[in-house]
Amino acid sequence: MTTPRDDLISWLRDAYAMEGQAIELLETQIQRLENYPEALPRLRQHLEETREQQQMVEQCLARLDADPSALKESAMKFTATMQGMLHALSSDEVLKHALGSYAFENFEAASYCSLMAAAETVGETEIARTCEQIMRQEQDMAQWVWEQLPHMTEEYLRRAASGAEAKR
Amino acid sequence: MTTPRDDLISWLRDAYAMEGQAIELLETQIQRLENYPEALPRLRQHLEETREQQQMVEQCLARLDADPSALKESAMKFTATMQGMLHALSSDEVLKHALGSYAFENFEAASYCSLMAAAETVGETEIARTCEQIMRQEQDMAQWVWEQLPHMTEEYLRRAASGAEAKR
Repeated sequence: MTTPRDDLISWLRDAYAMEGQAIELLETQIQRLENYPEALPRLRQHLEETREQQQMVEQCLARLDADPSALKESAMKFTATMQGMLHALSSDEVLKHALGSYAFENFEAASYCSLMAAAETVGETEIARTCEQIMRQEQDMAQWVWEQLPHMTEEYLRRAASGAEAKR
Repeated sequence: MTTPRDDLISWLRDAYAMEGQAIELLETQIQRLENYPEALPRLRQHLEETREQQQMVEQCLARLDADPSALKESAMKFTATMQGMLHALSSDEVLKHALGSYAFENFEAASYCSLMAAAETVGETEIARTCEQIMRQEQDMAQWVWEQLPHMTEEYLRRAASGAEAKR
Protein backbone atom coordinates (compact mmCIF):
# COMPACT_ATOMS: atom_id res chain seq x y z
CA MET A 1 0.00 0.00 0.00
CA THR A 2 1.42 3.34 -1.06
CA THR A 3 -0.04 6.83 -0.90
CA PRO A 4 -0.47 8.80 -4.14
CA ARG A 5 2.16 11.18 -2.75
CA ASP A 6 4.68 8.31 -2.35
CA ASP A 7 4.00 7.21 -5.93
CA LEU A 8 4.39 10.77 -7.23
CA ILE A 9 7.79 11.06 -5.51
CA SER A 10 8.84 7.69 -6.81
CA TRP A 11 7.84 8.57 -10.41
CA LEU A 12 9.54 11.95 -10.25
CA ARG A 13 12.72 10.07 -9.28
CA ASP A 14 12.21 7.86 -12.35
CA ALA A 15 11.83 11.03 -14.44
CA TYR A 16 15.05 12.41 -12.98
CA ALA A 17 16.89 9.23 -13.97
CA MET A 18 15.22 9.32 -17.40
CA GLU A 19 16.48 12.85 -18.03
CA GLY A 20 19.98 11.66 -17.12
CA GLN A 21 19.67 9.02 -19.85
CA ALA A 22 18.27 11.60 -22.25
CA ILE A 23 21.35 13.79 -21.70
CA GLU A 24 23.62 10.81 -22.40
CA LEU A 25 21.66 9.86 -25.53
CA LEU A 26 21.77 13.40 -26.93
CA GLU A 27 25.49 13.81 -26.18
CA THR A 28 26.18 10.55 -28.04
CA GLN A 29 24.06 11.64 -31.00
CA ILE A 30 25.73 15.05 -31.22
CA GLN A 31 29.18 13.45 -31.16
CA ARG A 32 28.32 10.92 -33.85
CA LEU A 33 26.34 13.03 -36.25
CA GLU A 34 28.89 13.82 -38.91
CA ASN A 35 26.98 13.92 -42.16
CA TYR A 36 23.88 15.73 -41.03
CA PRO A 37 25.18 19.01 -39.57
CA GLU A 38 21.82 20.68 -40.25
CA ALA A 39 20.39 18.66 -37.34
CA LEU A 40 22.97 19.87 -34.81
CA PRO A 41 21.40 23.19 -33.72
CA ARG A 42 18.10 21.55 -32.77
CA LEU A 43 19.86 18.67 -30.99
CA ARG A 44 22.04 21.10 -29.02
CA GLN A 45 19.00 23.17 -28.12
CA HIS A 46 17.21 20.07 -26.84
CA LEU A 47 20.29 19.05 -24.85
CA GLU A 48 20.12 22.41 -23.02
CA GLU A 49 16.37 22.00 -22.58
CA THR A 50 16.90 18.49 -21.18
CA ARG A 51 19.43 19.73 -18.61
CA GLU A 52 16.89 22.34 -17.51
CA GLN A 53 14.15 19.69 -17.37
CA GLN A 54 16.26 17.59 -15.02
CA GLN A 55 16.63 20.63 -12.73
CA MET A 56 12.90 21.29 -12.90
CA VAL A 57 12.20 17.72 -11.83
CA GLU A 58 14.66 18.14 -8.96
CA GLN A 59 12.76 21.27 -7.88
CA CYS A 60 9.46 19.34 -7.99
CA LEU A 61 11.04 16.74 -5.68
CA ALA A 62 12.26 19.53 -3.37
CA ARG A 63 8.68 20.86 -3.15
CA LEU A 64 7.71 17.42 -1.82
CA ASP A 65 10.67 17.38 0.64
CA ALA A 66 12.33 14.66 -1.41
CA ASP A 67 15.53 14.43 -3.41
CA PRO A 68 16.53 12.47 -6.51
CA SER A 69 19.23 10.44 -4.77
CA ALA A 70 17.26 7.42 -3.60
CA LEU A 71 16.92 5.55 -6.85
CA LYS A 72 14.40 2.79 -6.60
CA GLU A 73 14.38 -0.47 -8.45
CA SER A 74 12.16 0.58 -11.33
CA ALA A 75 14.40 3.55 -12.13
CA MET A 76 17.39 1.23 -12.23
CA LYS A 77 15.51 -1.14 -14.51
CA PHE A 78 14.58 1.77 -16.69
CA THR A 79 18.20 2.87 -16.84
CA ALA A 80 19.24 -0.63 -17.86
CA THR A 81 16.63 -0.58 -20.64
CA MET A 82 17.83 2.70 -21.96
CA GLN A 83 21.43 1.52 -21.82
CA GLY A 84 20.34 -1.49 -23.82
CA MET A 85 18.72 0.80 -26.33
CA LEU A 86 21.83 2.99 -26.51
CA HIS A 87 23.92 -0.12 -27.00
CA ALA A 88 21.66 -1.46 -29.75
CA LEU A 89 21.81 1.94 -31.41
CA SER A 90 25.60 2.03 -31.19
CA SER A 91 25.78 0.87 -34.77
CA ASP A 92 26.61 3.88 -36.85
CA GLU A 93 23.27 4.10 -38.43
CA VAL A 94 21.88 7.59 -38.24
CA LEU A 95 18.42 6.46 -39.27
CA LYS A 96 18.13 3.92 -36.47
CA HIS A 97 19.24 6.66 -34.08
CA ALA A 98 16.47 8.90 -35.34
CA LEU A 99 13.85 6.14 -34.88
CA GLY A 100 15.18 5.47 -31.38
CA SER A 101 15.10 9.17 -30.50
CA TYR A 102 11.56 9.45 -31.71
CA ALA A 103 10.50 6.53 -29.49
CA PHE A 104 12.45 7.93 -26.54
CA GLU A 105 11.00 11.46 -26.82
CA ASN A 106 7.55 9.94 -26.95
CA PHE A 107 8.34 7.76 -23.93
CA GLU A 108 9.32 10.92 -22.08
CA ALA A 109 6.20 12.79 -23.19
CA ALA A 110 3.99 9.90 -22.01
CA SER A 111 5.84 9.77 -18.66
CA TYR A 112 5.11 13.45 -18.05
CA CYS A 113 1.48 13.02 -19.16
CA SER A 114 1.09 10.35 -16.48
CA LEU A 115 3.04 12.44 -13.93
CA MET A 116 0.78 15.40 -14.63
CA ALA A 117 -2.29 13.29 -13.79
CA ALA A 118 -0.56 12.02 -10.64
CA ALA A 119 0.39 15.55 -9.50
CA GLU A 120 -3.20 16.72 -10.04
CA THR A 121 -4.53 13.78 -8.02
CA VAL A 122 -2.29 14.80 -5.13
CA GLY A 123 -3.36 18.47 -5.48
CA GLU A 124 0.15 19.58 -6.50
CA THR A 125 -0.98 22.01 -9.19
CA GLU A 126 2.41 23.67 -9.64
CA ILE A 127 4.13 20.31 -10.19
CA ALA A 128 1.36 19.40 -12.67
CA ARG A 129 2.06 22.61 -14.59
CA THR A 130 5.81 21.89 -14.68
CA CYS A 131 5.13 18.37 -15.97
CA GLU A 132 2.83 19.75 -18.65
CA GLN A 133 5.51 22.22 -19.76
CA ILE A 134 8.15 19.47 -20.04
CA MET A 135 5.64 17.20 -21.80
CA ARG A 136 5.08 19.83 -24.50
CA GLN A 137 8.85 20.25 -25.00
CA GLU A 138 9.21 16.48 -25.48
CA GLN A 139 6.30 16.47 -27.93
CA ASP A 140 7.86 19.34 -29.90
CA MET A 141 11.17 17.49 -30.08
CA ALA A 142 9.43 14.27 -31.16
CA GLN A 143 7.56 16.20 -33.86
CA TRP A 144 10.84 17.71 -35.12
CA VAL A 145 12.46 14.25 -35.34
CA TRP A 146 9.38 12.98 -37.24
CA GLU A 147 9.64 15.81 -39.77
CA GLN A 148 13.29 14.92 -40.47
CA LEU A 149 12.56 11.27 -41.29
CA PRO A 150 11.60 11.42 -45.00
CA HIS A 151 14.46 13.74 -45.98
CA MET A 152 16.94 11.86 -43.79
CA THR A 153 15.90 8.56 -45.39
CA GLU A 154 16.29 9.91 -48.94
CA GLU A 155 19.65 11.47 -48.07
CA TYR A 156 20.85 8.22 -46.51
CA LEU A 157 19.87 6.20 -49.59
CA ARG A 158 21.53 8.72 -51.90
CA ARG A 159 24.78 8.64 -49.95
CA ALA A 160 24.75 4.85 -49.52
CA ALA A 161 24.22 4.39 -53.28
CA SER A 162 27.07 6.75 -54.11
CA GLY A 163 29.39 4.79 -51.84
CA ALA A 164 29.75 7.72 -49.43
CA GLU A 165 29.83 7.15 -45.70
CA ALA A 166 26.11 7.54 -45.06
CA LYS A 167 25.74 5.91 -41.75
CA ARG A 168 26.73 8.71 -39.43
CA MET B 1 27.94 0.56 -51.11
CA THR B 2 24.33 -0.57 -51.22
CA THR B 3 21.53 0.20 -53.66
CA PRO B 4 18.33 1.85 -52.37
CA ARG B 5 16.57 -1.41 -53.27
CA ASP B 6 18.96 -3.42 -51.06
CA ASP B 7 18.32 -1.02 -48.20
CA LEU B 8 14.57 -1.21 -48.69
CA ILE B 9 14.69 -5.02 -48.52
CA SER B 10 16.89 -4.88 -45.47
CA TRP B 11 14.56 -2.44 -43.66
CA LEU B 12 11.47 -4.44 -44.56
CA ARG B 13 13.18 -7.42 -42.91
CA ASP B 14 13.74 -5.27 -39.83
CA ALA B 15 10.05 -4.37 -39.92
CA TYR B 16 9.11 -8.04 -40.16
CA ALA B 17 11.22 -8.79 -37.06
CA MET B 18 9.74 -5.74 -35.32
CA GLU B 19 6.19 -7.00 -35.89
CA GLY B 20 7.24 -10.32 -34.40
CA GLN B 21 8.33 -8.45 -31.26
CA ALA B 22 5.10 -6.43 -31.32
CA ILE B 23 3.06 -9.65 -31.31
CA GLU B 24 5.06 -10.95 -28.34
CA LEU B 25 4.68 -7.65 -26.46
CA LEU B 26 0.91 -7.54 -27.02
CA GLU B 27 0.44 -11.19 -26.02
CA THR B 28 2.34 -10.51 -22.78
CA GLN B 29 0.26 -7.42 -22.07
CA ILE B 30 -3.04 -9.21 -22.72
CA GLN B 31 -2.03 -12.05 -20.39
CA ARG B 32 -0.97 -9.74 -17.58
CA LEU B 33 -3.69 -7.16 -17.70
CA GLU B 34 -5.97 -8.26 -14.89
CA ASN B 35 -7.30 -5.09 -13.37
CA TYR B 36 -8.01 -3.12 -16.51
CA PRO B 37 -10.35 -5.34 -18.53
CA GLU B 38 -11.70 -2.28 -20.38
CA ALA B 39 -8.39 -2.14 -22.30
CA LEU B 40 -8.59 -5.72 -23.55
CA PRO B 41 -10.79 -5.27 -26.66
CA ARG B 42 -8.50 -2.62 -28.14
CA LEU B 43 -5.36 -4.64 -27.31
CA ARG B 44 -6.85 -7.77 -28.91
CA GLN B 45 -7.86 -5.79 -31.98
CA HIS B 46 -4.32 -4.43 -32.32
CA LEU B 47 -2.88 -7.93 -31.90
CA GLU B 48 -4.95 -9.05 -34.91
CA GLU B 49 -3.91 -5.93 -36.81
CA THR B 50 -0.26 -6.60 -35.97
CA ARG B 51 -0.45 -10.17 -37.30
CA GLU B 52 -1.91 -8.78 -40.53
CA GLN B 53 0.81 -6.12 -40.68
CA GLN B 54 3.49 -8.81 -40.48
CA GLN B 55 1.84 -10.58 -43.43
CA MET B 56 1.64 -7.32 -45.36
CA VAL B 57 5.37 -6.76 -44.82
CA GLU B 58 6.03 -10.31 -46.02
CA GLN B 59 4.03 -9.54 -49.19
CA CYS B 60 6.08 -6.37 -49.75
CA LEU B 61 9.23 -8.50 -49.52
CA ALA B 62 7.74 -11.00 -51.98
CA ARG B 63 7.11 -8.13 -54.44
CA LEU B 64 10.86 -7.47 -54.27
CA ASP B 65 11.66 -11.20 -54.71
CA ALA B 66 12.90 -11.37 -51.15
CA ASP B 67 11.78 -13.19 -48.04
CA PRO B 68 11.93 -12.37 -44.33
CA SER B 69 14.17 -15.30 -43.41
CA ALA B 70 17.62 -13.78 -43.82
CA LEU B 71 17.73 -11.69 -40.68
CA LYS B 72 20.59 -9.28 -40.75
CA GLU B 73 22.57 -7.95 -37.82
CA SER B 74 20.57 -4.80 -37.24
CA ALA B 75 17.31 -6.74 -36.98
CA MET B 76 18.92 -9.03 -34.43
CA LYS B 77 20.19 -6.04 -32.47
CA PHE B 78 16.75 -4.57 -32.63
CA THR B 79 15.25 -7.79 -31.35
CA ALA B 80 17.72 -7.80 -28.46
CA THR B 81 16.74 -4.23 -27.61
CA MET B 82 13.08 -5.04 -27.59
CA GLN B 83 13.70 -8.13 -25.47
CA GLY B 84 15.57 -5.87 -23.05
CA MET B 85 12.62 -3.56 -23.00
CA LEU B 86 10.20 -6.44 -22.46
CA HIS B 87 12.41 -7.69 -19.65
CA ALA B 88 12.63 -4.26 -18.04
CA LEU B 89 8.88 -3.99 -18.29
CA SER B 90 8.37 -7.41 -16.76
CA SER B 91 7.71 -5.85 -13.39
CA ASP B 92 3.98 -5.98 -12.89
CA GLU B 93 3.46 -2.34 -13.35
CA VAL B 94 0.67 -1.64 -15.78
CA LEU B 95 1.62 2.01 -16.08
CA LYS B 96 5.20 1.26 -17.13
CA HIS B 97 3.77 -1.16 -19.69
CA ALA B 98 1.58 1.59 -21.09
CA LEU B 99 4.52 4.00 -21.37
CA GLY B 100 6.59 1.30 -23.05
CA SER B 101 3.77 0.49 -25.47
CA TYR B 102 3.38 4.12 -26.36
CA ALA B 103 7.11 4.38 -27.15
CA PHE B 104 7.02 1.13 -29.11
CA GLU B 105 3.97 2.07 -31.22
CA ASN B 106 5.68 5.35 -32.04
CA PHE B 107 8.90 3.53 -32.92
CA GLU B 108 6.88 1.40 -35.32
CA ALA B 109 5.10 4.42 -36.83
CA ALA B 110 8.45 6.16 -37.40
CA SER B 111 9.90 3.00 -38.98
CA TYR B 112 7.06 2.88 -41.50
CA CYS B 113 7.35 6.62 -42.16
CA SER B 114 11.00 6.05 -43.10
CA LEU B 115 10.12 2.90 -45.08
CA MET B 116 7.48 4.84 -47.00
CA ALA B 117 10.10 7.39 -48.08
CA ALA B 118 12.48 4.57 -49.05
CA ALA B 119 9.81 2.77 -51.11
CA GLU B 120 8.96 6.01 -52.91
CA THR B 121 12.65 6.60 -53.68
CA VAL B 122 12.83 3.15 -55.27
CA GLY B 123 9.59 3.80 -57.21
CA GLU B 124 7.70 1.06 -55.33
CA THR B 125 4.45 2.99 -54.98
CA GLU B 126 2.38 0.04 -53.83
CA ILE B 127 4.86 -0.79 -51.05
CA ALA B 128 4.83 2.89 -50.06
CA ARG B 129 1.04 2.77 -49.78
CA THR B 130 1.15 -0.36 -47.63
CA CYS B 131 3.72 1.28 -45.34
CA GLU B 132 1.54 4.37 -45.05
CA GLN B 133 -1.47 2.24 -44.12
CA ILE B 134 0.47 0.40 -41.39
CA MET B 135 1.96 3.71 -40.19
CA ARG B 136 -1.55 5.12 -39.64
CA GLN B 137 -2.62 2.01 -37.71
CA GLU B 138 0.41 2.39 -35.42
CA GLN B 139 -0.35 6.08 -34.93
CA ASP B 140 -3.98 5.28 -34.06
CA MET B 141 -2.85 2.69 -31.52
CA ALA B 142 -0.32 5.13 -30.01
CA GLN B 143 -3.06 7.77 -29.76
CA TRP B 144 -5.35 5.31 -28.00
CA VAL B 145 -2.63 4.42 -25.45
CA TRP B 146 -2.02 8.15 -24.88
CA GLU B 147 -5.70 8.77 -24.17
CA GLN B 148 -5.72 6.00 -21.53
CA LEU B 149 -2.81 7.48 -19.55
CA PRO B 150 -4.55 10.03 -17.28
CA HIS B 151 -7.40 7.72 -16.29
CA MET B 152 -5.04 4.73 -15.91
CA THR B 153 -2.78 6.81 -13.64
CA GLU B 154 -5.66 7.96 -11.42
CA GLU B 155 -7.04 4.43 -11.24
CA TYR B 156 -3.62 3.05 -10.33
CA LEU B 157 -3.16 5.59 -7.53
CA ARG B 158 -6.64 4.92 -6.19
CA ARG B 159 -6.07 1.17 -6.10
CA ALA B 160 -2.56 1.47 -4.66
CA ALA B 161 -3.83 3.76 -1.89
CA SER B 162 -6.66 1.35 -1.02
CA GLY B 163 -4.16 -1.49 -0.71
CA ALA B 164 -5.62 -3.30 -3.73
CA GLU B 165 -3.37 -5.06 -6.22
CA ALA B 166 -2.96 -2.15 -8.63
CA LYS B 167 0.09 -3.17 -10.52
CA ARG B 168 -1.40 -5.44 -13.12
